[in-house]
Amino acid sequence: MSYARQMLDNSPRTLNLDAGVLAAAIDALDDCVQACTADIDADLSEQNLSDMVKCIRLCLECSDVCVATRGVLSRSESGSRITRRLLEVCVASCKTCGDECERHAQRHAHCRVCAEACRQCEQACRALLDALK
Amino acid sequence: MSYARQMLDNSPRTLNLDAGVLAAAIDALDDCVQACTADIDADLSEQNLSDMVKCIRLCLECSDVCVATRGVLSRSESGSRITRRLLEVCVASCKTCGDECERHAQRHAHCRVCAEACRQCEQACRALLDALK
Amino acid sequence: MSYARQMLDNSPRTLNLDAGVLAAAIDALDDCVQACTADIDADLSEQNLSDMVKCIRLCLECSDVCVATRGVLSRSESGSRITRRLLEVCVASCKTCGDECERHAQRHAHCRVCAEACRQCEQACRALLDALK
Amino acid sequence: MSYARQMLDNSPRTLNLDAGVLAAAIDALDDCVQACTADIDADLSEQNLSDMVKCIRLCLECSDVCVATRGVLSRSESGSRITRRLLEVCVASCKTCGDECERHAQRHAHCRVCAEACRQCEQACRALLDALK
Repeated sequence: MSYARQMLDNSPRTLNLDAGVLAAAIDALDDCVQACTADIDADLSEQNLSDMVKCIRLCLECSDVCVATRGVLSRSESGSRITRRLLEVCVASCKTCGDECERHAQRHAHCRVCAEACRQCEQACRALLDALK
Repeated sequence: MSYARQMLDNSPRTLNLDAGVLAAAIDALDDCVQACTADIDADLSEQNLSDMVKCIRLCLECSDVCVATRGVLSRSESGSRITRRLLEVCVASCKTCGDECERHAQRHAHCRVCAEACRQCEQACRALLDALK
Repeated sequence: MSYARQMLDNSPRTLNLDAGVLAAAIDALDDCVQACTADIDADLSEQNLSDMVKCIRLCLECSDVCVATRGVLSRSESGSRITRRLLEVCVASCKTCGDECERHAQRHAHCRVCAEACRQCEQACRALLDALK
Repeated sequence: MSYARQMLDNSPRTLNLDAGVLAAAIDALDDCVQACTADIDADLSEQNLSDMVKCIRLCLECSDVCVATRGVLSRSESGSRITRRLLEVCVASCKTCGDECERHAQRHAHCRVCAEACRQCEQACRALLDALK
């Protein structure tokens, strides 16, 4: 069981949604931040570096947005409207970054893995958005 | 002249908006992050600590959102739609946090200063949203 | 297999240490950041809030240090001296935060879980320091 | 007067050092984070991109370390030993990053500005280290 889930299960925080859905989103955000951070470094080592610039910038953006979203989801006083709108931005950023990483997936295995992390994060955030409605 | 402005003026980045408006938003986001971070610590030292819990949580949220927004604004490959929507979340978060800080402004001078930083950031982000239209 | 490990295994980055030890440290840092972030929120909901102030501040500090350490470990151009010294700071911060969380472990299960995450992170960073010698 | 200084002057936090020296370090850390973040983006737009890879990685590292240091300095419960050791890592990271940026200063004005921000941050952190002794 992930630490995100353990912390939710042992928190005084009152959840009006399924803890599993929330923990899954937090875990997927963590994974996406890690994949994007490592993908930036991997991209910087590639021979076709100039082809990777857009990927690097989108990974930086996706990582920034996921870090903020994870923080907001880990707190109980978050205005539900702000949470939902930030989740929507996060879905869009993961989609954009995942699409770009996928373009490089054949050539660079690290971009394939990063695209998977972005897709999983996009889906987990969508599932949480559905649960918050 | 702030470093945000100096970096914009010396960057190969092509801006299709006024550099002053963008730099003002980045600087206001920096100030808001610093004010919120320091306000959390100040709140934790207050006698009426239980009254400050909502303020602490909203400062944590506002800081998370402002950090992400500043990062995204500092890059050129940002999808303009993601930038705009993140700016809208940021405006909402600064408004919510500023309102809460203002409630404590009479009693705690640090909350008054933090409310000012939130208001300035809200306005600077609104001005940038107008410029991006 | 964690994303940290998958990214290392698919990166052009040349490692002069065991990928498992490095990935374990990155994963433990992620867990520690998440546990500390959630513990701050849980502490803020407790009745004995004034007893939790030190714990909140140390969780904020530990989280800041772990985020930086994780970023540095995820990149290949890090000066090995800076990496080692930052890992040492991280070990000290996890130790201090874990000790404080443990003091509250009997009363608050969330502090017990957070203490575990801090201990695991401390150990994983020590193991990495040993591997870097 | 910067928000960092205003917040210190209006905080219940007891300082056993000069508020101006502490505020100057926090402000210089903010500037350094902003300069490094913008320099990464500017580097990514340059023709001689492969020459800029080391600069990008060191700016990412310096930014990570400065963000953590700023957070720790903005709080009162920081263990003085951890604070000092983190400041030392920060001085080393700003020195390394500033040296690399300076190598590109003739060709790229954005690297010249970033080098200045790194130097100022290095000096402000050294001054704070002296004040903490």
